[in-house]
Parts: sequence; C-alpha cells; structure tokens
Amino acid sequence: MVSFECDYIAGAHPEILNRLAETNMESLPGYGMDHYTESAKEKIKAACGMPDAQVELLVGGTQTNSVVISTMLRDWEGVIAADSGHVSVHESGAIEFTGHKVIELPSVDGKLEADMVRAYLEKFHSDVTNDHMVFPGMVYISFPTEPGTLYSKAELEALSDLCREYEIPLYLDGARLGYGLMSNACDLTLQDIARLTDVFYIGGTKVGALCGEAVVFTKGNRPEHFMTSVKKRGALLAKGRLLGIQFDTLFTDDLYFRISRHAIEMALKIKEIIKEKGWKVYMDSPTNQQLILMTKEEMEELGKTVVFDRWGIYDDMHTIVRLASSWSTTEEDIKALAEA
Amino acid sequence: MVSFECDYIAGAHPEILNRLAETNMESLPGYGMDHYTESAKEKIKAACGMPDAQVELLVGGTQTNSVVISTMLRDWEGVIAADSGHVSVHESGAIEFTGHKVIELPSVDGKLEADMVRAYLEKFHSDVTNDHMVFPGMVYISFPTEPGTLYSKAELEALSDLCREYEIPLYLDGARLGYGLMSNACDLTLQDIARLTDVFYIGGTKVGALCGEAVVFTKGNRPEHFMTSVKKRGALLAKGRLLGIQFDTLFTDDLYFRISRHAIEMALKIKEIIKEKGWKVYMDSPTNQQLILMTKEEMEELGKTVVFDRWGIYDDMHTIVRLASSWSTTEEDIKALAEA
Amino acid sequence: MVSFECDYIAGAHPEILNRLAETNMESLPGYGMDHYTESAKEKIKAACGMPDAQVELLVGGTQTNSVVISTMLRDWEGVIAADSGHVSVHESGAIEFTGHKVIELPSVDGKLEADMVRAYLEKFHSDVTNDHMVFPGMVYISFPTEPGTLYSKAELEALSDLCREYEIPLYLDGARLGYGLMSNACDLTLQDIARLTDVFYIGGTKVGALCGEAVVFTKGNRPEHFMTSVKKRGALLAKGRLLGIQFDTLFTDDLYFRISRHAIEMALKIKEIIKEKGWKVYMDSPTNQQLILMTKEEMEELGKTVVFDRWGIYDDMHTIVRLASSWSTTEEDIKALAEA
Amino acid sequence: MVSFECDYIAGAHPEILNRLAETNMESLPGYGMDHYTESAKEKIKAACGMPDAQVELLVGGTQTNSVVISTMLRDWEGVIAADSGHVSVHESGAIEFTGHKVIELPSVDGKLEADMVRAYLEKFHSDVTNDHMVFPGMVYISFPTEPGTLYSKAELEALSDLCREYEIPLYLDGARLGYGLMSNACDLTLQDIARLTDVFYIGGTKVGALCGEAVVFTKGNRPEHFMTSVKKRGALLAKGRLLGIQFDTLFTDDLYFRISRHAIEMALKIKEIIKEKGWKVYMDSPTNQQLILMTKEEMEELGKTVVFDRWGIYDDMHTIVRLASSWSTTEEDIKALAEA
Repeated sequence: MVSFECDYIAGAHPEILNRLAETNMESLPGYGMDHYTESAKEKIKAACGMPDAQVELLVGGTQTNSVVISTMLRDWEGVIAADSGHVSVHESGAIEFTGHKVIELPSVDGKLEADMVRAYLEKFHSDVTNDHMVFPGMVYISFPTEPGTLYSKAELEALSDLCREYEIPLYLDGARLGYGLMSNACDLTLQDIARLTDVFYIGGTKVGALCGEAVVFTKGNRPEHFMTSVKKRGALLAKGRLLGIQFDTLFTDDLYFRISRHAIEMALKIKEIIKEKGWKVYMDSPTNQQLILMTKEEMEELGKTVVFDRWGIYDDMHTIVRLASSWSTTEEDIKALAEA
Repeated sequence: MVSFECDYIAGAHPEILNRLAETNMESLPGYGMDHYTESAKEKIKAACGMPDAQVELLVGGTQTNSVVISTMLRDWEGVIAADSGHVSVHESGAIEFTGHKVIELPSVDGKLEADMVRAYLEKFHSDVTNDHMVFPGMVYISFPTEPGTLYSKAELEALSDLCREYEIPLYLDGARLGYGLMSNACDLTLQDIARLTDVFYIGGTKVGALCGEAVVFTKGNRPEHFMTSVKKRGALLAKGRLLGIQFDTLFTDDLYFRISRHAIEMALKIKEIIKEKGWKVYMDSPTNQQLILMTKEEMEELGKTVVFDRWGIYDDMHTIVRLASSWSTTEEDIKALAEA
Repeated sequence: MVSFECDYIAGAHPEILNRLAETNMESLPGYGMDHYTESAKEKIKAACGMPDAQVELLVGGTQTNSVVISTMLRDWEGVIAADSGHVSVHESGAIEFTGHKVIELPSVDGKLEADMVRAYLEKFHSDVTNDHMVFPGMVYISFPTEPGTLYSKAELEALSDLCREYEIPLYLDGARLGYGLMSNACDLTLQDIARLTDVFYIGGTKVGALCGEAVVFTKGNRPEHFMTSVKKRGALLAKGRLLGIQFDTLFTDDLYFRISRHAIEMALKIKEIIKEKGWKVYMDSPTNQQLILMTKEEMEELGKTVVFDRWGIYDDMHTIVRLASSWSTTEEDIKALAEA
Repeated sequence: MVSFECDYIAGAHPEILNRLAETNMESLPGYGMDHYTESAKEKIKAACGMPDAQVELLVGGTQTNSVVISTMLRDWEGVIAADSGHVSVHESGAIEFTGHKVIELPSVDGKLEADMVRAYLEKFHSDVTNDHMVFPGMVYISFPTEPGTLYSKAELEALSDLCREYEIPLYLDGARLGYGLMSNACDLTLQDIARLTDVFYIGGTKVGALCGEAVVFTKGNRPEHFMTSVKKRGALLAKGRLLGIQFDTLFTDDLYFRISRHAIEMALKIKEIIKEKGWKVYMDSPTNQQLILMTKEEMEELGKTVVFDRWGIYDDMHTIVRLASSWSTTEEDIKALAEA
C-alpha cells in the first residue's frame, strides 16, 4: 500500500530528527525561552525580510487560529472568512468557543474575493442597526486554500488594501504555506505575504515537522501579554525547544522551501497520472492537493493499493477524493500510484 | 408625529400597569418564587393545553435565546438557524458568546425549509470528517419570522418530524408570537406550537408587557439546575413579580390574544394604505410588520409626520422601510398615516 | 405576617409607578435612546458632581457585575474581590462564565483591606512566574458590603490610591448604595465615591425601583462599543424607558436619598428591638441589614409572625438571621416586629 | 553549569527518540488513529489493571486540565482544588476561560484534606441559597502535589469515598505521577490510583517525553464526542503518532517507572547534599523536587555553577529555591551540585 491520504502521514524530515537527537541532552529553559527558539525566530524574520516582526511558535493549526483570532479580536468583533474556510467548517467551532462569531461569506474556488468583502463591509457600516450586530474585526484567508487554490499577488493586494482602508487586520492561515509559495502558479514570495498581511502563520505540521506552526506578527501588533493568553488557552508548550529546534532546522539552508518544492514536483506528476487515467478533476489545484471525483466502484478499485482521503461528498454518485503529496512523497510512491 | 417604528414604542398595556399598581405593596419573595409567577405559569400551561410543561420567565428576547440555546446544547453542538434569523444577525453574537456556533442555512422568505435542513443533516451525518465539525444539536426558527412571514402548520410539522427523526430539539422564538397566531393567514394554534416544538417562548416585550418572555419547555426537558444557569448568565431578575404579574395579566381573559388581534386589524389597515398609496412592497407579510421600499425622497416626505424604521438597505436607490403596528396602535394613528 | 426578609420584597416606590403610568402611552425609541433615559443620566451625573461621567442603565446586579467586569478586564486579567464578595459567592460563577477569574482575598468584616491588597499586588509583580498566573486587573468592592458594613473615607481613599498606583480600575458594587450613603456611620458622599472609584453602580432594584442599576464610568473609561457588548451578553433592554423613567424619578428631588434615609431610620429601630430582646448580633451593621444569631427554636417562634432571611449557617446550634429594612418598611412593620 | 531548574530541561529519553526515528517514514493516519497510539492505550490500560478504561493522549498539562475539567463539569458546576493547586495558581485562568470556577480550599502541605472538603460539601448542600452559588462538581488533586508532597493511600481513599458519597468525580493531575509512585514514601500503586479516582492523567512531559499526557477515564466516563470537544479547544494533535509512539515506548518494559525511580534516587542524593550544606528546607518532599530557603547572597553564590528555579518568595530575606531531579539527572550533575 502507498499513501496519498494527506500531508501529515509521515513523521518529521530526517534533518529535524537529527537535530532533535543532537541537542537532546542539552539543558534548556522551558516555554520557548531557549536559544534554539530564539534562533528560529531570527531566521524566520530574516526570511520574511522583516527584522521587526514578532514570531511566536505554537503546536497546531486549529490552536493557532483560535489563539491568534481570539487575542486580536475585540469583544464586539467577529472574523470574516470564506464559507469553505478551515475556521468555518473544520475546527469544531474552536473560534466560537472563544466567544466570537465567524462571519461566513461565499467563497469562489475556496477564496474570498475583495469585492465581496468590500460589499459586506460597506453594507455593515451603512446599516443603522449595526450596534446589534457582530462587527467585522478581521479577515481570515487560507493560503493555499482548503481545496488547494492560491490567491494571486493582485488578489492579496486587493484584500490587504481593503483591510487597511477599514483598519482591520488581515490574517493568513499558512498551514500549507510552503506548498503555496513553491507552486509554479504562485506569484507571491514570503516577503510579499509578510508585507501584505498583518499576521500569518507558517505551517510546520504539514511541511516537515512533527508539529508546530510559526505565527508572524508583521506590524508590531502582537497582543500584549501574549504568553499568558497562550497559557490561558492551554497552548503553551513546556518544552518549547521541540518547536524551536524544528523551525530552526526548517529555516536553515532553505530546507522549508526545498522540501515544499519537492512536494510540488510530486504533485505535478500526480496531475499527469490523473490526466492519463482520465479521472475527473473536481477543482484544478496548482498545489500539493489534487481533488478528483470518483464513483464508489472506482474508489474500491483504487483503494486496493492506494490510501487516499474522502474529502467530501459531491453527489449521489461521486465522492471528492483527495490525493496529497508532501515533503515525504517518493518517486516510488508515484510509480505505485501510476500502476494502481 | 405618529410612530409605526416598531412594536415596542409604548409602555405596557394599561391592565398590566393597573395590576402592578394594585399589587405594589405586597410583600413577595424574590427570584420568581412569588404566587403571581406561579399563577402565570399555570395559566400559560393551560393555554398551551399542556399541564406538564415547564414554564420559566426571563426578561428579554436575546437573553432568552442565549439562555435557552446555551443550556440545551451540548459541548460539541451548534444551532441551525436561517441566515436571516435573529440569532444569526441581530444579537451581536450572543450565541457565540456562550461558545456555540450558529449554523446558518439559506432562508426562503425568512423561513427554514425542512428539505434544506434535512439535506444538511444527511450530508453532515454521512461526512466521515464530521468529528472535526460542529454537530447540529438544535433547530431555531422564529414565528413570525424577522420579515413578518409565517410557517404553515404543514411546514412546522415537517420541521418537527425532522427534528424528532434526528433527535434534536426544535426551538421556536416567539418574540412576536401573538401577532403570528392572530394573523388571518395562520393555521396554527398555541397548542399546536406547544405540541410541535420542544421549547418555545411567548414574547411579552413586543406584545403588551414592559419586558418579559415566557419560555415553555414542552417535553419535560427543562435543563437541570436551570435557575443557577440563568443566574450564571446574569439573567435572573430579583423582583420576579414584575414578570409574574405581567404574564398573569396577559393570560387572564385572553388579553394576550385580544391585543394581538387588535394589532393585526391595524396592520390590515396599514396594508390598505400601502396599496392605496402605491408603495412598493418588499415582502408580503400577514403579520404586524409591513416592509416597503422607499427612495430617500419618499422617506424624507413621510418622515415629516410619521416615525418609521429603516429595516435594511435594498439597493443603491431604495431602503427597506418597516411600518409596525402593535397592541398600542390606534385608529387615530392609522388616520394620520393615511393622511401622511 | 410582616416581612423583613430582604430589601426587594415590595414593588416600586409609588412615585415611580405614577411616572410609569403617566408616560405609558408616549411613543419612545427603544434601547435607551429615549429622552427619559437621557434625563436620568444627566441627573445622575449632576448628583455625582461629574458632568463628564458616562452613565449606562442595566437591569440587575449580577448582570451589571458581569457586564462591567468582563468588558473592562483584558484577556489576561482577573478581578480581585473579598472572599465574601457577591461576585465570589453568590453569582453562580457569572464572572467565570465570561472567562475571567475572581481572585479572592480574605475579607475583614466583609471588606477588602488596602494593605492586604497591596501585599498581594506586590507579591504578584515580584513573582518571576507571573506570566503563568492571572494578572490582577481590577479591584471589586461592595458598598455597603454583603454583611452590611461600610468602608470609611480613609479606607476607600487607601484603596483608590493603591489602584491608581498599580493602574488598575477600582469598581464599587452599589447594589445598596443609598443605604450606605445615608447611614449615620458613613463619612462618604456620592461625589466622593464618584471621585475615588473608576466605575461604580447605583443600585435601583433594592432602593425603590422594580429593577435597574445605573453604572457610572467616572473617568471617561466606558468600554468602546459598550452597547454591542451589552447586547452580546443578552443584557440590552428593548424598552429602555423602563429604566430611564425609574432613575429619572429616583434622582428627582432627592427621592433616592430620602427613601434610603427612611430605611436607615427603620433599621435603627430594628437595632433597638434587637437590643431590647437580647438577640445576639452576628456583625454590627450601620446600614439596612441586621444580622443576628438564632437557634432553631427562636427561629420557629419568630417565624410565626415575621418573615426573615436565613443568611447563613453559623454553627451547629445557630443560624445567621437577616432582618432587612428598606424604603417600603413602615412604622407598623416595626411595631409588629417589636411585638413578635 | 549544571541544571536542576526543573524536570523538563532535557529532550526525550533516548529510547523514545530512537523509536521516533525508527518509525519516522511509516505512513500513518492522523489524529490518534494510528496503531502506535492504539498500542500505547492498551499498555496503559494493562499497567492500570483496568482493561475497560478509556485512554486519551493530549499534548500538555494545562491543556489536559482544561479539557478534562471543562468537558466533565456541567454548566452549573465548578471544581474544588487546593489553593496551592496548579489549576488555582499557575494556569493563567485556563479553567475560568472555559466558564467554570475553581473553588479554592485551604491546602495543608499542598494537599486537600478529606475532612475539609467534606465540611465544604456539607455546608454547601445545607445552604438554602445555593441555587445562587457554583455547585461543586469535581474534586481536583495533584499527585505529587505542586510542592512535592504525596497523598497516602488512606488519604486518597478518604477523598475517593467522599466523592462517591457526593457523586462527583475525583480527578488526579499526575503531571509528575512517576516521581510520586516511585518515591520511597509512596504506599500507592498505579492500579490503586486507577481504582480510587474517576479520571487521572499520567504525565509524559516531565517524565521522559518531549510532550504528552495520557488521560485515563477509569469508570467508562469519557465524555461523549470527546474528540470533537478536544478539537474545539484547539488541543487535537494532527500527528497523533508523536504521542502514541512516546507513550508506547514509556510503557514498554516499565521504562516509565524505571526512569522515574532513577529521578527519585538522584533526589535522595540531593537531600543528602542539602543536609550536609545545612540549607534550610522549606517543605520536606519525598519526590523529585526539593524546596529550600536561600538568601539573595546564597542564591548568587550557588548560581555561579548551578541553574535552579526561584519557586516563590518566602519572606523579605528568603526565596524558596527549587532543585529538581528528573530521568535525565546524572551522577555528574550530583557531583557538581555537591561541589557548588
């Protein structure tokens, strides 16, 4: 069996495991006060071209969304997101658990369109009853989006300009950031993202780490007493070194980008196989996740040798099947898929 | 100036004020333990034809929605509501404040359709990733709806059957219940509503009271230690007599229904005036709220003698204007509107 | 039977009921936008000698504590209170429901001592692990306290100075404020309280109103978008006139102070009766609540003609019994107690 | 420099790192559905002598306390804890963040005494106003306690009996469980703890793991839809293998107990050094944490070669200093301390 189920089927990139082993017996302070965490933060700031950014390391994606959104929103505010966004659909109500509404707007190919967000904001601010409503206090987007699409530089600029006009932060969920940035279709750099957003995170869990996400506050806007708010949410890791060493390794010699690019190259091969086999594409994705439509019979046949994800229900006859590549996908895996 | 701004422009029905004055100096226990509250509960149960129902009195509508929904949902659940529902739009995120998501489904004339809810529930329960989602744990509807429309008996039965099939409670927000039940278009009785829902509330604030809503748990399903949960939410009124005496009066000699019927008769006259004047109707309503479309100029002209509500924005040219009747609307008010 | 059970056994002061009746059919806007509410706020500001204060009217005491504390604290903060404080003991965890800790310090005669609070703050700020703790972000006191005692001017000044030194607000719960200010033992005025605290509320429910508490933000420090936060907590009253007219009446011709003084005079007579009867005093109170110790047999005997409150358990043999006077206590009530 | 700062200064036990490396490239499902997690759960159940227990793996201690307590308490309940308990003092209000009060009772040597808890419960249930209070719905204890002391079997039985009598769960925080069980002073086994509590956790972070805590629900009482509630709190780890492999290793060949015993042996040597040096003991501890009192000068001197923790302030002159041993403490470390 070969697995394309998701991008977190393997452990960590071997270089990360090596670094964890090499540093294992060093005595280090807890809670992110160690020098590896410090070094990781410096390297991330350098990669963002933003020496004054503030970087914080957390354990998982939903946790990061919950911590960032709930510490940045004010009492009377909610967060705008696409109705297909992770915070809207697949976090079991983690944002609402913190007392804030996710204001869902229709998505187009998994994306929020600036014009639609503008229309919402204009209507909200001209509504005389809006004291009885949830104030839009942040815009949340995913890059790549949940179905694997990408915002263009122009699209991100439009959202960024809009957020600045309305003075609300733009937050980018980069759970799979590397797979977006290294896509052939991407016209954005990490520096662009740092410049155009107010806060974003660089996903580690899906890009080579055992766990870990690096939040970047790009405008000196890290919430006050952030560590205490993280602790209050049960999200402070005692052995912060685990996150520090992993991100320090990922941002040494461009490892994060190199392994992301590898996943894209594997994805391009998967796209070729899809084309050859004549599988029907659900949404064309330039990143590491390929979504195709399959009947029950096709899934049974494929399932004999390949592990894949049932991403959603398409219609009575078809399921949306996800084939994901990652840093750990090998040429042998691809060959096995071609032969399936 | 004459006001059709909303159905809470006046104080209380005079009979209520009289009863408050008559009983004013009686020494009564607090927190709803007085005999007027007891009597009000008995009369409401009798009116519902449901001697085993449990009735609780609260102060306001958003408070009632928040208390009922958050004490009945379980940790992993959210509430399904129309995207035009009061809990979705006009409660400043009160449900989310309690840690629960409002799962918004598209509305048709302000209503949830059973087929659409069924489709949502079926899809949810067949989704293999639903452990990562908010479980639908209740269905919320308003009667009348926010734009003034009504569920038919057949529509309410369909929703009721669906909720029983999926074993989740059906909750009906009756902020304007009297104006729905007394409409010519209504084929439902209070008893029907008690039978078909699991919990609902009888609105007092908009139907003759200074404040107050009576929640009816129809299936022996009042949450345990309800009083403590009410207190915890800051919703327990010290002088419960204020609510008890008002509802006791409203449910004596059918006062609640008589004054509701009066409002409907006034609304029918408003409809005639709208027709005569050729105003464009936004949504045809059989209840006490009439929604019409007006240009800025028309609003300015009407505003010289009439107070009305700007209910929403329709397009660049038109605003949705609400003209509401209530128990306090007089023939003189109607005459003044006709002459405006 | 005559009742000394609590200070909310009667309805409203007759002048309030009269004003409600006189104004009943006026068409007024909702949500506190009416001119009676405006007038009430102006009169309260004048009584406080503080034209720039911000006044907001809410329905009940626990609701007010919950709204004020949770909108003023920041994410990482909790509120310091006496372990006997209302927010610590008798609000069913309403503060914790909003996500904030009540930091309980030992009380002395129901009061927080400035020295003890200072010691706590000093220790907290010198603790190197305090990033893992709840930051003290407000001090909550009650005036009169729950057992009926009073802070002296010197004591309140000491707490006020301390809070300014540590830059945290001092919040005074005035559920029974009138009964404190009108006590013979009180050396504070309403103006003193406005000056020395950052926010406080003037209790209406226990001092002549059907319901209602007036919050005074004394330093231009009302939280932003306060109305929306109030709505979010289910605490916004649709017919704000009910609160406005009541407070407008209470602050016309010193009604609030006159009826409070009456309650104190009645309390002095109760103290005399206690002395004459030789009942054992639990805590000497200069305000409207008298706490005495009674055996089961004594309670049975007294209970034949008098309604009283079982305030707490003292020991295996004795219960703490509360006899409360209020604006509605009459000379006849006192006579009946003397004869009991 | 040698460090006795805490028991999480090192990475993972080498056997754990080896297993992580060996299994690194295996394709495994996420969210704890992998076979290593399954195996870990089976081994833990066997070690507890409780085949029907339910085991769940979480990332950190505060997270575990927050998830377990908030999913087991009902709306109207809070958790009883010692005033020195971790949930009371050092979790930044994580329990209150979930809407529940920590009911703090005085501690004796870091422990809750059954008699004191009984007195609290009896008083609460005989208080006629308890509908306005937070219901005690769970008892939380730590083993070892925060200052390193242990409950005896008799003490734990007394608490267990009391909780069963009042039908509330007993929850044991075992962040350092191994260091308690392996102490010479301990008369309890893991099986005893599983039998006497309703839920407890086996700490991994402080006993050889990079991260991870194993919650054991001992009475078939795991909350319904636990995975969704975990996700809602941002606490679900995508690569559950990280936790599964670590606990599988710790519970293979008694590794957890062997390394815990090593830490105790090192602690006994530290105790000898303390005695030899004549350092003043703050609280006598039979586990891996030794608390001593030091002046500023003494700390400066010791700090030249030894890293230690400033655990708290004792008085104007003395700080409470913690010297902790762990699975990673070596004979060389001990020698260096002796020479300091």
